[in-house]
Amino acid sequence: MTAFREIAGNVVAAQGYTAASMHCGIKASGARDLVLIRSDVRAAAAATLTTNRFRAAPTYVTQEAVADGFAQAVIASSGNANCATGSQGLQNARRMAAAAAAAAGVPEGDVIVGSTGSIGVQLPIETIEAGIAHLGTVLGRDDPESVPLGIITTDRFPKQIAVEFAVDGVPVCVGAICKGAGMICPQMATMLCFVTTDLAVSPTVLRESLRRAVGLSFNCISVDGDMSTNDTVAILANGLAGHTPIESGDDPRLPAFQTALDHCTWEMARQIVANGEGMTKVLVIRVTGAPTYEAAHAVARRVGNYLEVKAAVYWEQFNWGRICAATGSAGVPLDPALTTIHFAGTKVWEHGEPLAFDRQPAEAALKAHEIEIAIDLGSGEQAATAWACDLSPEYVQLNKV
Amino acid sequence: MTAFREIAGNVVAAQGYTAASMHCGIKASGARDLVLIRSDVRAAAAATLTTNRFRAAPTYVTQEAVADGFAQAVIASSGNANCATGSQGLQNARRMAAAAAAAAGVPEGDVIVGSTGSIGVQLPIETIEAGIAHLGTVLGRDDPESVPLGIITTDRFPKQIAVEFAVDGVPVCVGAICKGAGMICPQMATMLCFVTTDLAVSPTVLRESLRRAVGLSFNCISVDGDMSTNDTVAILANGLAGHTPIESGDDPRLPAFQTALDHCTWEMARQIVANGEGMTKVLVIRVTGAPTYEAAHAVARRVGNYLEVKAAVYWEQFNWGRICAATGSAGVPLDPALTTIHFAGTKVWEHGEPLAFDRQPAEAALKAHEIEIAIDLGSGEQAATAWACDLSPEYVQLNKV
Repeated sequence: MTAFREIAGNVVAAQGYTAASMHCGIKASGARDLVLIRSDVRAAAAATLTTNRFRAAPTYVTQEAVADGFAQAVIASSGNANCATGSQGLQNARRMAAAAAAAAGVPEGDVIVGSTGSIGVQLPIETIEAGIAHLGTVLGRDDPESVPLGIITTDRFPKQIAVEFAVDGVPVCVGAICKGAGMICPQMATMLCFVTTDLAVSPTVLRESLRRAVGLSFNCISVDGDMSTNDTVAILANGLAGHTPIESGDDPRLPAFQTALDHCTWEMARQIVANGEGMTKVLVIRVTGAPTYEAAHAVARRVGNYLEVKAAVYWEQFNWGRICAATGSAGVPLDPALTTIHFAGTKVWEHGEPLAFDRQPAEAALKAHEIEIAIDLGSGEQAATAWACDLSPEYVQLNKV
Repeated sequence: MTAFREIAGNVVAAQGYTAASMHCGIKASGARDLVLIRSDVRAAAAATLTTNRFRAAPTYVTQEAVADGFAQAVIASSGNANCATGSQGLQNARRMAAAAAAAAGVPEGDVIVGSTGSIGVQLPIETIEAGIAHLGTVLGRDDPESVPLGIITTDRFPKQIAVEFAVDGVPVCVGAICKGAGMICPQMATMLCFVTTDLAVSPTVLRESLRRAVGLSFNCISVDGDMSTNDTVAILANGLAGHTPIESGDDPRLPAFQTALDHCTWEMARQIVANGEGMTKVLVIRVTGAPTYEAAHAVARRVGNYLEVKAAVYWEQFNWGRICAATGSAGVPLDPALTTIHFAGTKVWEHGEPLAFDRQPAEAALKAHEIEIAIDLGSGEQAATAWACDLSPEYVQLNKV
């Protein structure tokens, strides 16, 4: 049962949020490169940040901003990641937060900062500060459809979603915008996602809900050590829907929100995959029968990252043996004799033996846009899914930045 | 001080070895696809095999052959990996060993078997058996230069080496042939290496020497979970040089052999890198100042596998920030403030700050064939080196198999 419905809009769908985006001058192309989001009141806030040890300056500022569980605005720029920029970079990220606080009229410590783009180049901070000041004057006057444009880089399309559901009979919205493209290898591009809701919820419960939603979505496409330097998922919950607050993880009203939030982050992750740099097909790798979730996840990720498998899918060649090789190289103590493998709907391996199959329909199935690889390890109850893209010559071409 | 000198030849350079290669019919191209190596006497033997869980049938036969520490022949085929071939594949690998034993006149349990090529296809075993029988009749009559041709697949050139040194005043040889190409990602292609020597050495000492040599060479380019299904390094030491045997790891005569063996495996690994599929440049990633070898190794491998770094090197673009991102994503708890990074000779990062540098010479350095990335973690004494290739559009093209 789906307790929510999709509606038009994004981070300004929920009550009490305004936003605006513009071209301030970071991108040479003249495309939009700055977005400001504001909540009318201080909001419960949480963020999940990259585990990359060379993480970008804005992630430190965001971490500080949500440390007390509250924030009120988001400032994000695209075209320059403000990463590997040292102390000047950190200073610039703080200047972005300060400028956004002034422009939005919120406390200086309540601004979440995100940046995406080139690494190792200092931000044109005066240009950005001027842009932020301008955004403050036009907050809420912009077409909502232009909001997600401010954070995209090599994305082929802007990414947004909003859903509505009810808590205690009052309507509640969750909306999001995100940016992300390079999915061939998850380290290839930053993923930024900003979520807003008018749910009334405590910071502790919100943090746990976000952690769960990210685990079921973005972590299937961009995980742990593979994370880019700037990856950020942040959420604001300003409580303006008007119901009494959810303050416990056992609150029976929480699952409706969790379902809605899970849907939003899942949809954002799906859109990132569908937008992979130079990709032509989506791979869905479903691993079942694993002794642990970690084992299932390791196999799914390995197969999704295996270049020979990606290349075979791009060329629509039914080279199923490469899936065996990828599976076996995941560092998981699996047994080929217990493993069953399906490639695009054709069972190719079972009971330690390759299976006979009709090549014509097997190869024809590779013409689909979405290709499923299903691997059952036959040694447990745990499962995990990973998404990936094929590997095309255009991908290498695109990485000439 | 180098205690050895390179000489012409390969696995037939040492006393008491003969070999022959031919086209038996596995490869449609008509190229050589089978090689037989024989020692006149039973030899101490050792092998290091892939850790891939879907390892190929021949690796099981090789494991059995060297289990008692002795073997006398090697049979290797190219064009078909005999992997993911189930019980029939295992039976076929045993038939190869039996045919080789008969052809070479050695005990059936003393044959090392190696195969490389496509995965998931059964061997044309009758064709191979006929070929092996023929090779038995021409052993030693072949031009030594043709021996390494029998195990190559997409390799652009055959790979071989031989060195000579002295033990107790008598000359000793170590020689090798190997096959391997796809170095962009180490999982891309099988690595086979066969080494022969006329050193007199116990199986226990030999096994430890091989383990060390592989750790310092092939494991820098193809490591652990990344291993292909068929990776095999095997050595025979038949003792025909005539000195009294080395039976202890403390024997003062051992270092001369270890140095010679290390050189052979290092050179074979270097030739594999120089032959990467679709590669145009070699990356050497040197990590120093690490708390543990494992940490150094993890960072070096990660940077060598990071597609954005590889693409930048291919395009000769001085995008040093991608090296920071790759370093930070290695899953090693390093501190950017303690880390120093050089890219192609230019220091780009130190004390937590990006450094100013002259762009023109920095970019010019990327025109070299071999590009060095040096990363000092500033937190220990351990070091590791990894080799990798750049990423070119041709690479994807080549993987249309």
